[in-house]
Amino acid sequence: MAPFRWGIIGLGLIGGSIAHRLARQGLPVLGADQDPWTHEQARASGIFEAVLDPPDLAAAAEGVILATPVGAIEELLRTLPWRPGQMVLDTGSTKRRVVGAMDKLPDGVGAVGGHPMAGREASGFEAADPDLFVGRPFLLVPTSRTTPEAAARAEELVRLLGARPLWMEAEVHDRQVAWISHLPYVTAMALVAAVESAGDPALWAIAASGFRDVTRVAASDPRMMGEVIRSNADEVTATLETLLRILEAWRAALKASPPSLPPEWPRLAARRRGWSGGS
Amino acid sequence: MAPFRWGIIGLGLIGGSIAHRLARQGLPVLGADQDPWTHEQARASGIFEAVLDPPDLAAAAEGVILATPVGAIEELLRTLPWRPGQMVLDTGSTKRRVVGAMDKLPDGVGAVGGHPMAGREASGFEAADPDLFVGRPFLLVPTSRTTPEAAARAEELVRLLGARPLWMEAEVHDRQVAWISHLPYVTAMALVAAVESAGDPALWAIAASGFRDVTRVAASDPRMMGEVIRSNADEVTATLETLLRILEAWRAALKASPPSLPPEWPRLAARRRGWSGGS
Repeated sequence: MAPFRWGIIGLGLIGGSIAHRLARQGLPVLGADQDPWTHEQARASGIFEAVLDPPDLAAAAEGVILATPVGAIEELLRTLPWRPGQMVLDTGSTKRRVVGAMDKLPDGVGAVGGHPMAGREASGFEAADPDLFVGRPFLLVPTSRTTPEAAARAEELVRLLGARPLWMEAEVHDRQVAWISHLPYVTAMALVAAVESAGDPALWAIAASGFRDVTRVAASDPRMMGEVIRSNADEVTATLETLLRILEAWRAALKASPPSLPPEWPRLAARRRGWSGGS
Repeated sequence: MAPFRWGIIGLGLIGGSIAHRLARQGLPVLGADQDPWTHEQARASGIFEAVLDPPDLAAAAEGVILATPVGAIEELLRTLPWRPGQMVLDTGSTKRRVVGAMDKLPDGVGAVGGHPMAGREASGFEAADPDLFVGRPFLLVPTSRTTPEAAARAEELVRLLGARPLWMEAEVHDRQVAWISHLPYVTAMALVAAVESAGDPALWAIAASGFRDVTRVAASDPRMMGEVIRSNADEVTATLETLLRILEAWRAALKASPPSLPPEWPRLAARRRGWSGGS
């Protein structure tokens, strides 16, 4: 029996990394990207069976991976010529809207929401890495179109990537990523904005590894991240309100005379130190 | 002529790294640490000419480096038997209070405030690294006791460490480090507190590199960082107020219907990407 053939639409860091990983395991992969330069890079890489337009790819692939920005994922779900028996998985960073679009796919299409918990600030096909997902959770979200076959295929793909499948509902997903991904991004951007507002170029000259690490995610593609955050604005706003309450309480403590320190700091430092993901 | 003999009080990451660097260059170094375990580690390392009590070290060294936490630096400046012709430099993270204490040293003592812009979350003598300061700014702050000889010795030491001397006034120093070091620390701690407050252990299981980097400084020694921030509470409060204003404006934008994104995000991302220190 011929191996299951995946096609990947969107060949940036995530889609490109999936393509490299599958190709390295000798599996046939189709690719598509609307950007002409990425299209050419993908063609020249030699890892794709073919680099096609999205409708041709959807017609030729048994499973389609949508690895474009979130808005384009919804658009592709609405417009591509899906057929019964076909499988579709996305890799978008928020899930409620994507799952809503998947729920409207024709009967018989097997659809699963996906979100690999791996990333870099570097982006684009040239930053792709077949080992990007190794050992990381790959969140999987059920839809009304999640057939048992689609669920099994999605888990198989996740394991091919070296990642760990972790199922959760779209609502839970979007709340959780607001805490651990979107709120940290907004906060890092606010730190850059605050230092910018001080209007002192010398600050950037003396800033050391602490500032570098805290603000690293602020170097992410702002269009892509902006779209993600707008698609999850209610949950991001809720986390931001919690953060603001904490910072306001700490400001009051530091502003007291004499200044006092938040008593929870030793506990929080221990929590962060004890986190196994926190190397 | 015998080489100038430095003595270092406080053999943690900073003091230990200075000691390793000087010893590697064949220079005589004295050490002191109030912690018995660190004292023993230092003795066993073989890099010190002698490991002494602080008063004996101050009597024997031509130049004394105070590399203890900020509060202990002030205390040592008040209590050690300083003598004319002796040189003293500290490495504390805030400078106004240290410089105030240096201003009261006996006439003829040459005193310079110092702050190496290098650090790690790892701490203690066992984390010391002779190359910790290489290529980094080492901020130097003048006091009323900064003789030309003391200034030259301080610059010489900084160059021995492989760092770049950068002179600035204590007030400017404390304002600048509030922006690029203390505010990022407080913010990272607040992110840990916010995620903790969500009460969902699954969040820590799915958190990826973005959350890890943003919160890395939260793993620093909370007692040491707390002391630093309390000693600079007025400047930290001012930066925190700026950050709160920014976050409140962004929350309002995200809470609007439909949600909007801060228009400055692309500019801020470009600023962070264009920062040469931001690898």
